[in-house]
Amino acid sequence: MKQKLDIIKIGGNLIDDEKALKVAISAFSENKNLKILVHGGGKMATKLSTKLGIITQMQKGRRVTTAEDLEVVTMVYAGLINKKIVVKLQALNCNAIGLSGADLNSIQANKRQNTEIDFGFVGDIVNINIENVNTLLLNNFCPVFSAITHDGSGQLLNTNADSVAARLASAFAEIYQVRLLYCFEKNGVLIYPLDEYSVIPALQEQYYIDLKNKGIIQDGMLPKLDNCFEALKNGVNEVLIGSPEIINSKTLIYSKLLL
Amino acid sequence: MKQKLDIIKIGGNLIDDEKALKVAISAFSENKNLKILVHGGGKMATKLSTKLGIITQMQKGRRVTTAEDLEVVTMVYAGLINKKIVVKLQALNCNAIGLSGADLNSIQANKRQNTEIDFGFVGDIVNINIENVNTLLLNNFCPVFSAITHDGSGQLLNTNADSVAARLASAFAEIYQVRLLYCFEKNGVLIYPLDEYSVIPALQEQYYIDLKNKGIIQDGMLPKLDNCFEALKNGVNEVLIGSPEIINSKTLIYSKLLL
Repeated sequence: MKQKLDIIKIGGNLIDDEKALKVAISAFSENKNLKILVHGGGKMATKLSTKLGIITQMQKGRRVTTAEDLEVVTMVYAGLINKKIVVKLQALNCNAIGLSGADLNSIQANKRQNTEIDFGFVGDIVNINIENVNTLLLNNFCPVFSAITHDGSGQLLNTNADSVAARLASAFAEIYQVRLLYCFEKNGVLIYPLDEYSVIPALQEQYYIDLKNKGIIQDGMLPKLDNCFEALKNGVNEVLIGSPEIINSKTLIYSKLLL
Repeated sequence: MKQKLDIIKIGGNLIDDEKALKVAISAFSENKNLKILVHGGGKMATKLSTKLGIITQMQKGRRVTTAEDLEVVTMVYAGLINKKIVVKLQALNCNAIGLSGADLNSIQANKRQNTEIDFGFVGDIVNINIENVNTLLLNNFCPVFSAITHDGSGQLLNTNADSVAARLASAFAEIYQVRLLYCFEKNGVLIYPLDEYSVIPALQEQYYIDLKNKGIIQDGMLPKLDNCFEALKNGVNEVLIGSPEIINSKTLIYSKLLL
């Protein structure tokens, strides 16, 4: 029987709301399994960009990560948010260590190639170095990842945090019994985005495809859910989406994804 | 015979000068001993503060680290500069891992207490967790420290990078034969700050005290040198100050400190 490993993503408004973040970090620290935290960026980077007068570049309606944007997200994600989380975990006796994908060459990515749109410094993950990250786990160190990756040739890249969590989960499914938990400010995947009580308890892939085709699930949830089903196909044991209460099974309301 | 460990601080204008930084990082990557890099902050944090309209607070002529300043230095030191260095080292096949003192609880500090002046979020180091950092070294991981520390109760603190290097060196002197190397844009400690050729090759503590009393060595060099002599007293094997060429003994011009 493989040992258990929980890969827990916290994102959405949890990052920007000091109180909600504290609750999520506290729940994470209480989880007794081997564990990895992946955090999103919230709205702090956009706020900082605005203050600095950096104008968002768009290409055919898609957002581009310019060199200036990359500096901002590196500062905010890998610096401010990452260290704020690490320092709080340390205060709760969780031996956290903040990482970007460049640290220990843990997550290598390729700059996104697209003949139509130049997305700038955006990275699509090509390799997870599970050996190095596992060395940390085996020493009872708790990795805390920001979603900054690198290309192995000296270039940092901005990567989607949901993808980072899903790819870490898929890679570690080889050697651990992995649970992938996505925590945010909602209780799960909602049929009606404005109705907190419309959580879909069991979201099977075919049902998801139907809801996607009907336009009921849309926007930011689509790549998140695509990542989740991909992880299940790669051998991840369980994928849950919900509030931070799912971390220590303190709620019965969440979405469980099923193939 | 203890194994060798080099603790190498890069600071001063090296951080702000892309080309000089590249040379320093390349020299560091070529060093074959166990090694730890400590980097300063350069002028980037001040530039960012200015852009954000943050006004430097002074108390009785001393600079104060406000909550806003702390956010800026955390972003710039632990985020941007740290990851820029790590990604470049990884491209040179050095398995770098960026750390603040909060990561792995590696450097604990106390918020500076002073009845006359409130320095804000400035930390004086009280403990180095050599066990955790040594675990990284023993796995052939190369720690790269920014000078952000923490108090163990959830508060990040801004700490002098020279002190971080010296305290790491002193702590590791227990188990390694430690060399402490301070690299910056000059060739060593200069008798005449404007004369590059006035490097003091052997700087004995008594001579240093004389030069200090005469006001010949002043400003930023004083805490740096105080740290150096402290490290020698704590059992550090060798302390050198000079250009990045000292890292791999490629120059005969540098200052060697002696008790």
